[in-house]
Amino acid sequence: MHQTFDAALEINLLHANQRGADHNRAHFDQWGITCINLMSSPGAGKTQLLERTLQGLHDLKIAVIEGDMTTELDAERLRAYGVPVIAINTGRACHLDSKMVAGGIHQLQHGYTPTELDLVVVENVGNLVCPAEFEVGEHAKVALLSVTEGEDKPLKYPVMFREADCLLITKTDLAPYLDIDLERIEANVRQINPDVAIFQVSAKTGDGLADWFEWIHKAVNSQTNRLTAHSMAT
Amino acid sequence: MHQTFDAALEINLLHANQRGADHNRAHFDQWGITCINLMSSPGAGKTQLLERTLQGLHDLKIAVIEGDMTTELDAERLRAYGVPVIAINTGRACHLDSKMVAGGIHQLQHGYTPTELDLVVVENVGNLVCPAEFEVGEHAKVALLSVTEGEDKPLKYPVMFREADCLLITKTDLAPYLDIDLERIEANVRQINPDVAIFQVSAKTGDGLADWFEWIHKAVNSQTNRLTAHSMAT
Repeated sequence: MHQTFDAALEINLLHANQRGADHNRAHFDQWGITCINLMSSPGAGKTQLLERTLQGLHDLKIAVIEGDMTTELDAERLRAYGVPVIAINTGRACHLDSKMVAGGIHQLQHGYTPTELDLVVVENVGNLVCPAEFEVGEHAKVALLSVTEGEDKPLKYPVMFREADCLLITKTDLAPYLDIDLERIEANVRQINPDVAIFQVSAKTGDGLADWFEWIHKAVNSQTNRLTAHSMAT
Repeated sequence: MHQTFDAALEINLLHANQRGADHNRAHFDQWGITCINLMSSPGAGKTQLLERTLQGLHDLKIAVIEGDMTTELDAERLRAYGVPVIAINTGRACHLDSKMVAGGIHQLQHGYTPTELDLVVVENVGNLVCPAEFEVGEHAKVALLSVTEGEDKPLKYPVMFREADCLLITKTDLAPYLDIDLERIEANVRQINPDVAIFQVSAKTGDGLADWFEWIHKAVNSQTNRLTAHSMAT
């Protein structure tokens, strides 16, 4: 449930959400954790990508905050990989906000020692529109776009593609069966966001995952470097 | 832009939207028009299905009210079929509401004679969550779910599947390349909504479209019958 409404109320809500996001990020920074916010349409392959990521990145200590409207289906899939998974049911809400994620962080603190974690992945509700506007305390936004969704989506849903730091074009194994031009997708994304990192991946075949893993390592290292610089400066 | 907020405000907004939807529906009824609201995730194939539908249903006079956040890409695709297409840009809004569609109806009245139309299809913004809660004046809600989106979506996004009068499982031509069980999708939908009409279709190969066309004819005929009964009674 959501609505467009008057500008003042809208600005107040976004400000309140932003304050909460900054607070969450301050916690992550304090603990040396990198947080990424994973967003896409339903069925673009967020959970499968996360499964492959948990399998592939054994050198990192990862936890997941899993947003779903009603079920714990995705959370259960990810718990099979032996990592902490906090499930948040949003009910009728179409995205996670910073307050919901703060609740997830609170739960995480009760069961685990946050300073031992390297990475928290927030898997958002499947929605290519709304989650892009609500920061949850992440250091980077990662958007997924499945090749099955078509070339025009970056132009039709620009907010998500403008906000993304990294875009994964997923399910590339299906491209041979579609009338689709992957270069056209990339060009449409670049029209909205020239500097975004783009990787073409298939969680099924493993194609392109090495580049995605390298991007995560860089994100985690830059957080570690920031902390080292901060501790040397103080 | 949208948000979860306090219950009283939420109820007021939904009531205001519902009043607008009832008003739109009264217009459609007065003109003998059947209105269907087409909803799905981005890229599930709403526009391609509409293209095939406009090609296949030459016996019906159809107009389209086309909702998109920013572009007229879909509206332009459909104008190529020689039917009235009213484009509504929702800006940052993640769904059409009854007020936006009232604006579309108003535009339609200026360019065309509504009583000459049989069917108005409202193509909603690509979003599996939010459009389900905002009636726009439709007589029936049609949801699309692409086989690429996975079997679990009816359970994870129950509001849309509970509200739908008709569900189209789309892109069945891709099923051989996916690890997917179409019967499982149908069973998951029936768990949420036992009475929904379900058709498996491929807009690419044409498989299953005849059943969909028949469903539309029935919906249009039932509107005609309702009008005839009403005029005989008065």
